Amino acid sequence: MDQIYLITDIQGYTPEVGRLLSMMNYARYTTLEAAKNLTTEQLDYLMDPEGNSIGALLLHFAAVEFAYQLETFEKRDLNEEEMLIWGPALDLGEKGRQAIRGNDLTYYVNKLNEVRTKTYELFKTVDDDWLHLEEPFWYGKQANHYFMWFHVFEDEINHRGQIRLIKKKMNTQL
Amino acid sequence: MDQIYLITDIQGYTPEVGRLLSMMNYARYTTLEAAKNLTTEQLDYLMDPEGNSIGALLLHFAAVEFAYQLETFEKRDLNEEEMLIWGPALDLGEKGRQAIRGNDLTYYVNKLNEVRTKTYELFKTVDDDWLHLEEPFWYGKQANHYFMWFHVFEDEINHRGQIRLIKKKMNTQL
Repeated sequence: MDQIYLITDIQGYTPEVGRLLSMMNYARYTTLEAAKNLTTEQLDYLMDPEGNSIGALLLHFAAVEFAYQLETFEKRDLNEEEMLIWGPALDLGEKGRQAIRGNDLTYYVNKLNEVRTKTYELFKTVDDDWLHLEEPFWYGKQANHYFMWFHVFEDEINHRGQIRLIKKKMNTQL
Repeated sequence: MDQIYLITDIQGYTPEVGRLLSMMNYARYTTLEAAKNLTTEQLDYLMDPEGNSIGALLLHFAAVEFAYQLETFEKRDLNEEEMLIWGPALDLGEKGRQAIRGNDLTYYVNKLNEVRTKTYELFKTVDDDWLHLEEPFWYGKQANHYFMWFHVFEDEINHRGQIRLIKKKMNTQL
């Protein structure tokens, strides 16, 4: 926590991997701060009947991170079995609203920690050069591993902004 | 645009500054995509009477970036004159709702470009070591310049998530 505002080396990782992890750690810290003390009812709250609950967004972060572990380390998409587990959280929307509810905060935090622990292990096996490996990605353009993992945390920050907004609205209604 | 999914070197900048700028560029690209074609009425729309309009959030991005130019390159806060210009966009809330309205998209895009052009110039004058210079920051902890600029784009991504949510709601109401 003393390093929370430093984008810098992290022991056990190459320099650029350390910087990437620093940013991921800060993003996660702010996510957990935003979710802190929320009850199951609050985690299930829908600001908009067509929107996503905070709980679904939290599970989405774990699902996206898991998907990019497969994408960048195994070069594959989720298989059918994995989609049964992670599909609703990955896709959100109606599927997410139906499947992801009734869980307490610990449930979501455990999922987040589980996946992040795996990321920490995986990142130990790669280096700065690996971050710059490219492959065809969105719209026929090239992306490197660094971008893909940047996207993992930028998606989290994007939805964390929404979580903050949902909380503001919720506090006037629940 | 061919490099939009690459976090990598950018000519004229040291390696880590290039990577930071790559992330800032991607964040800005997605911001402009989210704001594309919005009318003045849409830019002024308030999803919540206590919330921020998309226009105010766009100007907030320029204001935050300007503030961190001063913070990291001049080691000072905004002076009174600068606060008259940027205060409402920095602070948002009631001040923002009153002062920031009636502008078209070009107005906001010009402000964003103006400040970003200055950032491009400033970043040419520094290097990777500069990114790692530390100073006391939030809650008595140290932050380095890298973190401060990371925060500039993570704040933008946070609010971009809100812009996307506001747009969704707006489309059912305007």
